Amino acid sequence: MLNVYLSGEIHTDWRNQITSAASHLDVSFNSPVTDHDASDDCGVAIMGAEDQKFWHDHKGAKLNAIRTSKGIADADIVVVRFGEKYRQWNAAFDAGYAAALGKSLIVMHQDEHQHALKEVDAAALAVVKTPQQVVEILTYVLTGSLQKS
Amino acid sequence: MLNVYLSGEIHTDWRNQITSAASHLDVSFNSPVTDHDASDDCGVAIMGAEDQKFWHDHKGAKLNAIRTSKGIADADIVVVRFGEKYRQWNAAFDAGYAAALGKSLIVMHQDEHQHALKEVDAAALAVVKTPQQVVEILTYVLTGSLQKS
Amino acid sequence: MLNVYLSGEIHTDWRNQITSAASHLDVSFNSPVTDHDASDDCGVAIMGAEDQKFWHDHKGAKLNAIRTSKGIADADIVVVRFGEKYRQWNAAFDAGYAAALGKSLIVMHQDEHQHALKEVDAAALAVVKTPQQVVEILTYVLTGSLQKS
Amino acid sequence: MLNVYLSGEIHTDWRNQITSAASHLDVSFNSPVTDHDASDDCGVAIMGAEDQKFWHDHKGAKLNAIRTSKGIADADIVVVRFGEKYRQWNAAFDAGYAAALGKSLIVMHQDEHQHALKEVDAAALAVVKTPQQVVEILTYVLTGSLQKS
Amino acid sequence: MLNVYLSGEIHTDWRNQITSAASHLDVSFNSPVTDHDASDDCGVAIMGAEDQKFWHDHKGAKLNAIRTSKGIADADIVVVRFGEKYRQWNAAFDAGYAAALGKSLIVMHQDEHQHALKEVDAAALAVVKTPQQVVEILTYVLTGSLQKS
Amino acid sequence: MLNVYLSGEIHTDWRNQITSAASHLDVSFNSPVTDHDASDDCGVAIMGAEDQKFWHDHKGAKLNAIRTSKGIADADIVVVRFGEKYRQWNAAFDAGYAAALGKSLIVMHQDEHQHALKEVDAAALAVVKTPQQVVEILTYVLTGSLQKS
Amino acid sequence: MLNVYLSGEIHTDWRNQITSAASHLDVSFNSPVTDHDASDDCGVAIMGAEDQKFWHDHKGAKLNAIRTSKGIADADIVVVRFGEKYRQWNAAFDAGYAAALGKSLIVMHQDEHQHALKEVDAAALAVVKTPQQVVEILTYVLTGSLQKS
Amino acid sequence: MLNVYLSGEIHTDWRNQITSAASHLDVSFNSPVTDHDASDDCGVAIMGAEDQKFWHDHKGAKLNAIRTSKGIADADIVVVRFGEKYRQWNAAFDAGYAAALGKSLIVMHQDEHQHALKEVDAAALAVVKTPQQVVEILTYVLTGSLQKS
Repeated sequence: MLNVYLSGEIHTDWRNQITSAASHLDVSFNSPVTDHDASDDCGVAIMGAEDQKFWHDHKGAKLNAIRTSKGIADADIVVVRFGEKYRQWNAAFDAGYAAALGKSLIVMHQDEHQHALKEVDAAALAVVKTPQQVVEILTYVLTGSLQKS
Repeated sequence: MLNVYLSGEIHTDWRNQITSAASHLDVSFNSPVTDHDASDDCGVAIMGAEDQKFWHDHKGAKLNAIRTSKGIADADIVVVRFGEKYRQWNAAFDAGYAAALGKSLIVMHQDEHQHALKEVDAAALAVVKTPQQVVEILTYVLTGSLQKS
Repeated sequence: MLNVYLSGEIHTDWRNQITSAASHLDVSFNSPVTDHDASDDCGVAIMGAEDQKFWHDHKGAKLNAIRTSKGIADADIVVVRFGEKYRQWNAAFDAGYAAALGKSLIVMHQDEHQHALKEVDAAALAVVKTPQQVVEILTYVLTGSLQKS
Repeated sequence: MLNVYLSGEIHTDWRNQITSAASHLDVSFNSPVTDHDASDDCGVAIMGAEDQKFWHDHKGAKLNAIRTSKGIADADIVVVRFGEKYRQWNAAFDAGYAAALGKSLIVMHQDEHQHALKEVDAAALAVVKTPQQVVEILTYVLTGSLQKS
Repeated sequence: MLNVYLSGEIHTDWRNQITSAASHLDVSFNSPVTDHDASDDCGVAIMGAEDQKFWHDHKGAKLNAIRTSKGIADADIVVVRFGEKYRQWNAAFDAGYAAALGKSLIVMHQDEHQHALKEVDAAALAVVKTPQQVVEILTYVLTGSLQKS
Repeated sequence: MLNVYLSGEIHTDWRNQITSAASHLDVSFNSPVTDHDASDDCGVAIMGAEDQKFWHDHKGAKLNAIRTSKGIADADIVVVRFGEKYRQWNAAFDAGYAAALGKSLIVMHQDEHQHALKEVDAAALAVVKTPQQVVEILTYVLTGSLQKS
Repeated sequence: MLNVYLSGEIHTDWRNQITSAASHLDVSFNSPVTDHDASDDCGVAIMGAEDQKFWHDHKGAKLNAIRTSKGIADADIVVVRFGEKYRQWNAAFDAGYAAALGKSLIVMHQDEHQHALKEVDAAALAVVKTPQQVVEILTYVLTGSLQKS
Repeated sequence: MLNVYLSGEIHTDWRNQITSAASHLDVSFNSPVTDHDASDDCGVAIMGAEDQKFWHDHKGAKLNAIRTSKGIADADIVVVRFGEKYRQWNAAFDAGYAAALGKSLIVMHQDEHQHALKEVDAAALAVVKTPQQVVEILTYVLTGSLQKS
């Protein structure tokens, strides 16, 4: 059985594409909270409001770290997707965190970001462009078969 | 003695500001190669040209990783500066890598990036805006004194 | 599934409040022995009486450490509650032990102890006042939902 | 050579008693910042004021953690002194942190706190009452000699 | 659930006394091969005879180490019994091995060996004389109850 | 239960001989992909063709490393077979990797390679010639019995 | 300062080429014993003769492992050279050992072995053909300069 | 430079034989306190008398553990000598402790104890009978030379 953590971009349905296409495989998926508002506000919603945006964000980011750090620590494979928009520094942070723990890293991005992501790609065991490729990799790693799913 | 690794943005002289202002302290500084061209081309310059940009970058990024991974592994404190421009995913990658190794993390950035860097800041022991603040922190950590240097 | 260790104050029913309110969640709870007399006397009850109070306590504390060290080592999250009374140095000891192992730390205390607990709070990913807040955090970490349970 | 970290109570001169009596030994001593005001205010002094006492303390405690975590990580022996006053939860936190890292722990306190500190004492390799006893232990560990210094 | 490894003396039925008295507890027991002849000859029986006693023993001891090292690595608690006869250096070796891995160590021996075993006892969380005491400890650690089983 | 990883030579049916003869034992076996063509071409099949043989192989070898590294990391015992043909440097690499992680290593080869494999054999807990011997070792480690299966 | 371990082929003077060309750099080099006869016979020369070639080699290989394991453990960078002749399984073993410890790996070999070494190359941060390239890499890693030495 | 810890028997001058014969080598030697009376009584001499022999010994053994654990942790090589007399369980404990930490282990004993020490010998990289052989090993490991010193 493989434990796979799906980190990074949360504005498209790439996680669903992977998990539904891989539903027949012996894989357990985990991911960050992908409800953008909940993720931003969880800290103050549970522990009380803050006047300063910095501390508002700080409380939320630490709460999310409880889930994220367990998700990465439990994973055999960490997939990190960089989307077309936003800075996505948390995605790169997760990639570095996973690399330091010796996790197998798969990075997903389009060609336009190739140069900017060269250090992240260099730490990866696979660099792909589509969710389908991730499913093919998981299929191959688990079954040894290259037949397209 | 403190080992400090200065990661991140390479287009301003922030490293020099820190190292010269801290020259009287018992600190050993390390940093990535900050010669942009050398950093980009080191792989092919030493190990031979590549037709594909991806592999050109890959060879260079891996070579730089020899220096970077040692710099972070040897450090007590990792300072990561996010500048005003560029994606700087390698800076965030280094921050995640350092956090997973349990290094003391200091993050430097301006207010405009506060929300985008909230997960990185949440892993840090200090968030600052200027090289001078880094020097004050190093002074305090080593000497216990808050007198401005 | 989350493994949660509930450390600290043993004179109120805060553990029961958490475990019953979280009974629908996929959480496994562990805790120290909360029977105060058993906890104090376990060593001499099993291994023989001691003339000196120091060794009486020593035998018991070491026996309890078998349970405590496993509870913390197995945990994803360690919750440490500081009550209104007593020195509770073992609670702070557990918090330091958990922090050094990289566990996600949640600290629970009232405002009156805020300054005295600042170092412990600084190592935590969440600081709360009530058992209900712990349940909300566990709910959020597991489900991504902020709806009050 | 022994690296010794002197943690805990900062209101008496016990550290000076140890370091001056042990000045002829091959020991390197480290300790937290013992200037109470600097320790409390370092965060806001360097990184800017906070309206909330919690965040004022939080910034300071994290900055102090840079020094403390290095001091403990570098140590062969961690001495933790519990004084007669105050809650001293940071002392117990340091003791737990040191124990989890497998450091040799020496605890110093008077008889009145024996029962409250039984879990901390149980993790220690020595429990003493005076700075002089710490010096005798360091002398013995380094030289094998029991002659009083 | 507790994983317990029962190391040491193999000439009395102490393991059976513990496992049958603890059969109602949520404990998984492991132990070395206790068939003395099989343990001595396993190496040459499977991998071929040796002329030299040293290599005969060497092959067997290494084969047994496959079982022993897994048993200790998987254990929460390692119980080491020193009997009345023989040198039992492998028992002390297992105790040292377990201590270095941070396992909870319980040592069982009679008073006559107290002085000779003082270093081993000093690394233990409990020192007992009878299998019944081990069962009482396991009962207490799992249930918090001191009622005799 | 034992986790066993079967590394090395992929041109004979030695893995089948072991797994079928050991089917009655509580052992979970894992192995690399043994379909030679799939193993060679998996990288380019999923992630796109390469002009250079080096990068063709590189992509495949990294993809296979996802499976291999998990297989070894999860294993209690790593069996490495060196066949009569080919360089088999990946087998020796796996043996070194397993040894550094402290895995119990069993090496299988014929006499002709004894001198060339002396460093690998020196890191092993057993050196054998046949799949049947591996089954006898697994039987002995699990059951303590030397009866031939 | 860099610690570099030079593993692998011992029949050409590649180590001398590196160490003399890098003599002006802040590098400390270590290597296995390269006196072939001493390396083969060290075990029996010091600890007594053996009738069986297997044990003759075994004693020597273990003695060499004292030096090799320290050399790799102390290294920042492990360079492994595969020559044109012999099986060189110990070189591949060292590469796997270094990779599992997270060392920066540089592999040196000619094109003819490219396919057979693809798994080893995939674990490396640089793949080179000549000692001169190793010196250029060390120069770049230490100084950031690509000027040929 | 090699760090060598000399554990075990304290009634003959074997340590002196090694350290004087190896005085020209780049080796740093450490050892337990070999003054038998000081070693037995250090605990009560510094921390106060005990009525019970068990606690008298306990205090001393824990104090000695401060020195012993550092000595082994700092060592590259741990030499453990088993003499002709006494149980020497602390020697076997040190050997197990060193083995679990991955230290290179050299065991010294005469033939009469070969069978009783087979598990300890199986964990060693060298088994010798004389101090002179230890010096020859250290010479070979450091210099690669087999010339008798």
